[in-house]
Amino acid sequence: MRQKNYVPTRLWFLFFCPIFFCLSGIILNAMRLVTDSITLSTRGDADIIDITSQVSALLGRHGFTHGQALVFVSGSTAGVTTIEYEPGLLKDIPAMFEKIAPQNASYHHEETWHDGNGHSHVRAALLGCSLTVPFKDGRLLLGTWQQIVVIDFDNRPRRREVVVQISGE
Amino acid sequence: MRQKNYVPTRLWFLFFCPIFFCLSGIILNAMRLVTDSITLSTRGDADIIDITSQVSALLGRHGFTHGQALVFVSGSTAGVTTIEYEPGLLKDIPAMFEKIAPQNASYHHEETWHDGNGHSHVRAALLGCSLTVPFKDGRLLLGTWQQIVVIDFDNRPRRREVVVQISGE
Amino acid sequence: MRQKNYVPTRLWFLFFCPIFFCLSGIILNAMRLVTDSITLSTRGDADIIDITSQVSALLGRHGFTHGQALVFVSGSTAGVTTIEYEPGLLKDIPAMFEKIAPQNASYHHEETWHDGNGHSHVRAALLGCSLTVPFKDGRLLLGTWQQIVVIDFDNRPRRREVVVQISGE
Repeated sequence: MRQKNYVPTRLWFLFFCPIFFCLSGIILNAMRLVTDSITLSTRGDADIIDITSQVSALLGRHGFTHGQALVFVSGSTAGVTTIEYEPGLLKDIPAMFEKIAPQNASYHHEETWHDGNGHSHVRAALLGCSLTVPFKDGRLLLGTWQQIVVIDFDNRPRRREVVVQISGE
Repeated sequence: MRQKNYVPTRLWFLFFCPIFFCLSGIILNAMRLVTDSITLSTRGDADIIDITSQVSALLGRHGFTHGQALVFVSGSTAGVTTIEYEPGLLKDIPAMFEKIAPQNASYHHEETWHDGNGHSHVRAALLGCSLTVPFKDGRLLLGTWQQIVVIDFDNRPRRREVVVQISGE
Repeated sequence: MRQKNYVPTRLWFLFFCPIFFCLSGIILNAMRLVTDSITLSTRGDADIIDITSQVSALLGRHGFTHGQALVFVSGSTAGVTTIEYEPGLLKDIPAMFEKIAPQNASYHHEETWHDGNGHSHVRAALLGCSLTVPFKDGRLLLGTWQQIVVIDFDNRPRRREVVVQISGE
């Protein structure tokens, strides 16, 4: 009878069950964060580049199934948005930006840098450099005809680093 | 005296206290993520729909008090932003988009699809499909006269699925 | 021999090791969320204010090294974006907005409020009130000539509350 009042050595492992459950909960289910990037070569002049498949591939590579992908263009002459990536809009969207901020207009930015890309800065500021796309079941929740694009407004070819920061499970 | 050297059975529960504290910490305080959606019927033609109360209701429904709500429009002819939702601006904002990308202008997008919504795509690309709104104490941190709106630029009534992904505590 | 079948009191602390490991894992490595704010005094009229160093300082103050900073302007007459903060663009960007939505044009918003800031609302709706900037190793992943700015489009000086919500590790 007295033995019942003590913890038998052979049942020690029972103590660890909830601890391992707890640890696996943290490792498997808790939210986590990964920062990666995509490197692009652009032609500049409102070159529009579809990066959807590259963003999507990063979800799988880092083992995410549910969460959000922040796409962020480092630099002040490019932006990010979503469009239907088809040849007509690849002309229409640059035409809209040419109307809003014409390349050959006069910009005060020239007085500082003399590099002829005042229009690029102004357009990029308007479009924005940051886009967050949700995903679930490992799939980006984009529409069927909706692609993630980087638009490079600079007036020359550029190498661009696009940050992709994925958070979720 | 010898009994003191062993763990008495009736004190076993003490071992589990920190484990349950730990588990409750994960469940109650750790960050988590929920993906839900709002379905809208729009009239198209730059129809502006206030979804603030629906986004706010989702916070409560999923038990979030502190975090951020990502509002994402799936599709390439609608966008999301915040405005003061009042009758005057419901005319002024479409007027601005009509100036930037007039409905009756010529779009190369027509050559691909012949569906008369080139202006819708161009406007949506500019406005953007993604908005993140922080919340605290269960309340969206919007200004008093600031509402979350979806603008449907398509040239016909549409059924829209707006993804709302909430992350936080 | 019988003693071996029981848990000796002096080994109790061994049970707590994995629990503390577990707890420290949650506290040190798990994602967390902090909501803070920056208060600005603006001159209005498309005043552009660089808040990069203030956002950056908040990362350190709250002990974050890896994650993202959501910058959100509460209010419907201001926006947030990134620009190269130099004197030329501080004139070029307001000039673009004056072209898109001129201050002296006629706005239906006037019929509601008679406060002369219809252009401010329309511009803010287009630019957007929300920006998410990733950071790693305690440093915002901005380009060398890329600053986070708030643009106040209102037609008078304003006190602005900019929410900065940081999530990560």
